[in-house]
Amino acid sequence: MKRIALDMDGVLADTYQQYQHFEEKNKGRRKDPASLTGLSEFEAFPDAPVYLLQEGFFRTAPLINNCVEVVRKLNNSYELFIVSSATEFPQSLTEKQAWLNEHFPFINWRQMVFCGSKTIVSADIMIDDHFKNLDYFPGKTYLFTQPHNALADPGKHQRVSGWHELERLLL
Amino acid sequence: MKRIALDMDGVLADTYQQYQHFEEKNKGRRKDPASLTGLSEFEAFPDAPVYLLQEGFFRTAPLINNCVEVVRKLNNSYELFIVSSATEFPQSLTEKQAWLNEHFPFINWRQMVFCGSKTIVSADIMIDDHFKNLDYFPGKTYLFTQPHNALADPGKHQRVSGWHELERLLL
Repeated sequence: MKRIALDMDGVLADTYQQYQHFEEKNKGRRKDPASLTGLSEFEAFPDAPVYLLQEGFFRTAPLINNCVEVVRKLNNSYELFIVSSATEFPQSLTEKQAWLNEHFPFINWRQMVFCGSKTIVSADIMIDDHFKNLDYFPGKTYLFTQPHNALADPGKHQRVSGWHELERLLL
Repeated sequence: MKRIALDMDGVLADTYQQYQHFEEKNKGRRKDPASLTGLSEFEAFPDAPVYLLQEGFFRTAPLINNCVEVVRKLNNSYELFIVSSATEFPQSLTEKQAWLNEHFPFINWRQMVFCGSKTIVSADIMIDDHFKNLDYFPGKTYLFTQPHNALADPGKHQRVSGWHELERLLL
């Protein structure tokens, strides 16, 4: 059974919607979504470092469309690990685990990895929205489209634009 | 530079001393240390599952002798990751990171991995006190002696009985 290392933020958790929500809560207005494409998250939301430290940012993040139903199927056909960068923001650790337990009750604690660098991950397939994680991975890599990577050449990675596309490719 | 995956509980954190401390706090007496050898941790301390959920168990654990000075040197000669089973006990996540930050300030967040199963770890060397982690690791493995494994045949793993021995072997 092949092993998948699956990212959380920007792949399962809709980080951009959460940035917009915190932008509105903190500043009273949302960004024009069209203005975000091609910018890094911190360029698009200069106050992101503040939002990431606010209580609930990770715990209340909305879900990326269709991810729960497809992850449930992947979990039956692959050895699935959720691998999330979390140690940079210590308060995110328990928030992320509680979020996973709420939305993905079929994923157990043995399948969760909270780390800083993903270079230590051994798997056959990695699904992530960041080149910094995919570039060092020796296996098959899927670049999950998010505004920050939407204009970039995916290079050796296979771009996927949503969970139904991943479902067609992997199931 | 070779990569080391280094366990926390029973290798950096003196889990047995902490069990004894909680045993005394909860029951008014410590176990005879000689009675613990060869038993699993849960056989040796039947109330361990309760203690592991009590606030501070991971945050206030004492250090294994000499570990800080040797880990500091390893950190200069190897690509070092601290890889700790933590997701089974969600409250341990932030306690473990705070503990590492306190005692190992030279270890940064990129070097920390909190997981459930260590089968996903890619490294050259693993140092751990549990066969369940070492047995699936394809690289060089060191079995760190603790009472629960003290009577076991180390098999393909190299037994080490403390941090000065690891220092001689690795530095």
